[in-house]
Amino acid sequence: MNFLTNEKLTIVGAAGMIGSNMAQCAAMMKLSSNICLYDPFAKGLEGVAEELYHCGFDGVNISWTTDVKEALTDASYIISSGGAPRKEGMTREDLLKGNAQIAADFGRNVKKYAPNCKHIVVIFNPADITGLIVLLESGLKPNQVTTLAALDSTRLQSELAKHFGIAQYKVQGCVTLGGHGEKMIPCASKATVDGTPLLKLLGTDKLTKEQFEEIKQKTIQGGSNIIALRGRSSFQSPSFVSVEMIAAAMGGEPFKLPAGCYVNTNGYDHILMAMNSTIDKTGVHYQLSDLTAEEKAGLDASYKHLEELRDQVIEMGIIAPVKDWKTINPNL
Amino acid sequence: MNFLTNEKLTIVGAAGMIGSNMAQCAAMMKLSSNICLYDPFAKGLEGVAEELYHCGFDGVNISWTTDVKEALTDASYIISSGGAPRKEGMTREDLLKGNAQIAADFGRNVKKYAPNCKHIVVIFNPADITGLIVLLESGLKPNQVTTLAALDSTRLQSELAKHFGIAQYKVQGCVTLGGHGEKMIPCASKATVDGTPLLKLLGTDKLTKEQFEEIKQKTIQGGSNIIALRGRSSFQSPSFVSVEMIAAAMGGEPFKLPAGCYVNTNGYDHILMAMNSTIDKTGVHYQLSDLTAEEKAGLDASYKHLEELRDQVIEMGIIAPVKDWKTINPNL
Repeated sequence: MNFLTNEKLTIVGAAGMIGSNMAQCAAMMKLSSNICLYDPFAKGLEGVAEELYHCGFDGVNISWTTDVKEALTDASYIISSGGAPRKEGMTREDLLKGNAQIAADFGRNVKKYAPNCKHIVVIFNPADITGLIVLLESGLKPNQVTTLAALDSTRLQSELAKHFGIAQYKVQGCVTLGGHGEKMIPCASKATVDGTPLLKLLGTDKLTKEQFEEIKQKTIQGGSNIIALRGRSSFQSPSFVSVEMIAAAMGGEPFKLPAGCYVNTNGYDHILMAMNSTIDKTGVHYQLSDLTAEEKAGLDASYKHLEELRDQVIEMGIIAPVKDWKTINPNL
Repeated sequence: MNFLTNEKLTIVGAAGMIGSNMAQCAAMMKLSSNICLYDPFAKGLEGVAEELYHCGFDGVNISWTTDVKEALTDASYIISSGGAPRKEGMTREDLLKGNAQIAADFGRNVKKYAPNCKHIVVIFNPADITGLIVLLESGLKPNQVTTLAALDSTRLQSELAKHFGIAQYKVQGCVTLGGHGEKMIPCASKATVDGTPLLKLLGTDKLTKEQFEEIKQKTIQGGSNIIALRGRSSFQSPSFVSVEMIAAAMGGEPFKLPAGCYVNTNGYDHILMAMNSTIDKTGVHYQLSDLTAEEKAGLDASYKHLEELRDQVIEMGIIAPVKDWKTINPNL
């Protein structure tokens, strides 16, 4: 049946809009012949499972459970959208406290029930922080935990395509780095527009600096814009892209858009943020590529912001101080 | 990029839950490099388009419009979920009047703007009737219009798999015929359970007649059950399966689950209902296969019910009497 793997894929938060879409994507994309859906909300979860059964997918066993032990035991791959969603008017940071606790509990459950898990993609916000907490508490290695960050890059790609009036896929190399939030850094230096480097166009009448600033703002507001338009949080794109990420970790097509990953070098200390990276069967690997001075300054500011958020979570008592992390996860 | 076609695929009702999922499926399954989303609800439609842009699909142009002329012009393939949804407690038949009018308007627009359309899949309920109206008013040939009926078959497959405690794909040959409603006919005669003909098991202690009656009831209530569990109409399975149908019409893998299609032979007169059928690049083709006497009687009853519904729509003045159909669509 050409599944990428027969190992167990668990989708956490599968009763929700994102999780249910993930489950559908995973089955459609033939990720695993063994998909387990987990959510504490039994009724909605059963409804999602029924929808998938009615799709009649060939060769795949889809199970569902409200028991976290059953869900995680023997899971080799996990995608988690199991946080509280962002509501209209909330910033990603408003979500911090509740979702940090959920992430800590989830990470501890992974350590307990799925210590041999190969890769986890975390997508509940603020993902840079929840992913960091999951990495810490799960005991996994830094290359085994990633967070969804690529939507910022595809949003930049889409806004540039609209500006130039060309098909989206003719804009390439869009990268946003740093935090997945208001402090993200949409980078111009790697992008090309129909083959022309964006930096050659930037500052000309084809793309004034003011216009690029507007495009950056639209990129940053891409998620809020969906809420304003649809009356609900974005769910189709986070689902599809995060399933592409876990597919890459399973040995599918390498995922080359930025992923949120653990960074502990070059002045960045015990943090998880969006980097130029590749996910493949060996996990995630990032490069600290040559950024422009302005982009580097932006990334530094983004880092500082994430450091503050991390330290807030430590102050809340949800996770241990950084100095003790090594005792919780020797891989850090 | 390996798209099935570069011809235009239009998704009608793309702002809705089913339509937006269809659009995502169509892009994921690489149906066409040219996907047009149509819906009268501009804000929601733009939101869906944004979601798809944020997926970053490679090689595909996704456009959206609230102008039906623009949407349908040059469309070679159309999937329409553009009816009013079924709400909790409503039967499919309650929807009849409103959706029959929508179907008539849609069919007339196809005749006007997309007379060279190759295939339409209609999925808004009662689909047997809305599909029939679209066929009549569009002027297309009977093999060019199909309706979603396969969910009844996958629901039967799923319920049998649950009963026998085996993986769903080990139950094969499940077929439900006739109307897509309370009068549908779940057939036992073609099904096999892990290789054993269902008829050999039926009436034994492995599957008593009472148990099979319960399974049939669960099959018929599959859609209502989703509403009860999720608090919303089924959308993932109708979307995925109807996209599989249009993919088959584009030349993808033939679709072998029952489709609703036009029947005008063997005592069935000017009707559209679920038949044993195959959709491939040449359109839909049905077989009147050997049913058991009981199944044939059920199909006849289902036919009678659909005939009544069709005649109600004629009485409502939404479509012409059957005797005048040839002047509206010479292919019938």
